[in-house]
Amino acid sequence: MSRLRVWFLVLIVAAGCGAEPGAGVREQATAPRGTPQADPLPSWNDGATKAAIVDFVGRVTGDGGPEFVAPGERIATFDNDGTLWGEQPIYVQVAFALDRVKALAPKHPEWTQKQPFKGVLEGDAKAVAASGEHGLLEIIAATHAGNTTEEFSRIVADWIDTARHPKSNRKYTEMVYQPMLELLAYLRANGFKTFIVSGGGVEFMRPWVERVYGIPPEQVVGSRAKVKYELRDGTPVLMRLAEVDLVDDKAGKPVGIHQVIGRRPIAAFGNSDGDFEMLEWTTARPGPHFGLIVHHTDAEREWAYDRSSHIGQLARGLDEAPKRGWIVADMKQDWKVIHPFEMH
Amino acid sequence: MSRLRVWFLVLIVAAGCGAEPGAGVREQATAPRGTPQADPLPSWNDGATKAAIVDFVGRVTGDGGPEFVAPGERIATFDNDGTLWGEQPIYVQVAFALDRVKALAPKHPEWTQKQPFKGVLEGDAKAVAASGEHGLLEIIAATHAGNTTEEFSRIVADWIDTARHPKSNRKYTEMVYQPMLELLAYLRANGFKTFIVSGGGVEFMRPWVERVYGIPPEQVVGSRAKVKYELRDGTPVLMRLAEVDLVDDKAGKPVGIHQVIGRRPIAAFGNSDGDFEMLEWTTARPGPHFGLIVHHTDAEREWAYDRSSHIGQLARGLDEAPKRGWIVADMKQDWKVIHPFEMH
Repeated sequence: MSRLRVWFLVLIVAAGCGAEPGAGVREQATAPRGTPQADPLPSWNDGATKAAIVDFVGRVTGDGGPEFVAPGERIATFDNDGTLWGEQPIYVQVAFALDRVKALAPKHPEWTQKQPFKGVLEGDAKAVAASGEHGLLEIIAATHAGNTTEEFSRIVADWIDTARHPKSNRKYTEMVYQPMLELLAYLRANGFKTFIVSGGGVEFMRPWVERVYGIPPEQVVGSRAKVKYELRDGTPVLMRLAEVDLVDDKAGKPVGIHQVIGRRPIAAFGNSDGDFEMLEWTTARPGPHFGLIVHHTDAEREWAYDRSSHIGQLARGLDEAPKRGWIVADMKQDWKVIHPFEMH
Repeated sequence: MSRLRVWFLVLIVAAGCGAEPGAGVREQATAPRGTPQADPLPSWNDGATKAAIVDFVGRVTGDGGPEFVAPGERIATFDNDGTLWGEQPIYVQVAFALDRVKALAPKHPEWTQKQPFKGVLEGDAKAVAASGEHGLLEIIAATHAGNTTEEFSRIVADWIDTARHPKSNRKYTEMVYQPMLELLAYLRANGFKTFIVSGGGVEFMRPWVERVYGIPPEQVVGSRAKVKYELRDGTPVLMRLAEVDLVDDKAGKPVGIHQVIGRRPIAAFGNSDGDFEMLEWTTARPGPHFGLIVHHTDAEREWAYDRSSHIGQLARGLDEAPKRGWIVADMKQDWKVIHPFEMH
């Protein structure tokens, strides 16, 4: 299923879904990112998964060892949705698009009569569905195009700073995974350069990932719209067009990695079959390599889903991980905590 | 004039031009990159240009000063051809394409009868010219497509290690500019992250720029072909297609910068009108910014060309530099030496 189709299905579901009423606004606490201690991965339970990670890092950093990798080549790539932060019940970027429709509605009085916008505004999932793929493209164009890159960046920054997850009622940037934050820091402390390689929009991530993950904008690969350089009243701008330039998903991930990073990662981390080719490309590398899939198995603390999920579907990855030597991290078994806020 | 058209003109000229006979193979010496001393830019003559560089770096690194820029935002972008290394009498990548035609000719006996290849093999510039833009695309397709990215990388690495500049008979990687090497090192020592943003092919640069400029592959932006991820006998590869994905020249440079770097540079360095928009975009940034044009004025030690040159044409940049506050570095006046090998 293409990412566009998934978005579409998700939009349909989401149009009928709002924040759970009565959840209330909880106190916003600064998320601790793990305190320095002997164990660099304190939120990972001891076991085979954690041991495999530590073993790999030891091998590639062991100066003079047979599997030593020079620091510059220690490239690690991370999917975002479902790997570094949650993707349920809807992709965060879909929530953003729906909120943008609502925010822009006053400037578009015609939307109250025009699908799919009418459906979004009225929470009428059936009507959104009836608008088909054309309707989806209209929503994306209306919410993701027509701005300059800097305007869009500010819109995203403002939204991410205020929007709330429909289940937890916390900021989305709190819905990140504490064990993965520790893993990012651990790899960087061992000379790795960490990159995000996400099917989500690169311009939807860049405004906040440095603050949240410690990953600077130039180390983010994602799907992207075409942009056009032009002068607006004499001032140069990059206009965001309603045209897709790269779908950084499935076989698009090695392409995005090649375009932006220009060398093959030695370690890749994902959670869905959208990450399959990224892991395949990484672990087909001659020399040491590492592939890990985050398996969402914890219905109580997070969500449990894999083969039949429209979001983050994971089937082929589960089937082939054992024979490809990929590690499957079991969230329920391997993670002591899921989110930073659980550590209070 | 589009970069494709320039390539075309250059190919025509180049088809009739070989290495000057009798130049002989000079001793290959390791190029010194400047020794540590009080002056971080020893190959720059004292004067307004050098003072402007040092002043800018002082302002953005002056902790607590009004123009302080956080290290992560100290992004500096450099054009390659004509800015970091020579581009005369032909773009190095054109020399590569012509050599590839010759190297591949034994596998293509039909080329001895087929233009534009026949013209290239026989040094018949007129015949190459007669093949038109279609002929150019055939040469690019035959020399730049159909390989995997890793095969192409090895081809480039082997070529750059052996090919000789037609005038100096030195390796092309020796034809870099010593003052610019010092500038790259000086900026990095002051917390800048240095990127190449070139109209040349990104995959033509990545195999050697780290060794020569200290710039890693993930900090190179350039023109690029489309690549396709596929399995070849079960092994994943990225195939290089005969389709252009980005022309990273003129208005394409801010686009390439945005796609790969994701934030606006605070300093940009170029030498031709192909760099105009990169400098415009950089110096329209609110807050401190710096734009510099390398002006090729030294016919004796290098080449002298600007307004009427097909390669590295510089007209609008010269006209507008004063009113835009861009520095024009005069190679003859400002540079004590041009190439590292002159320092012996």
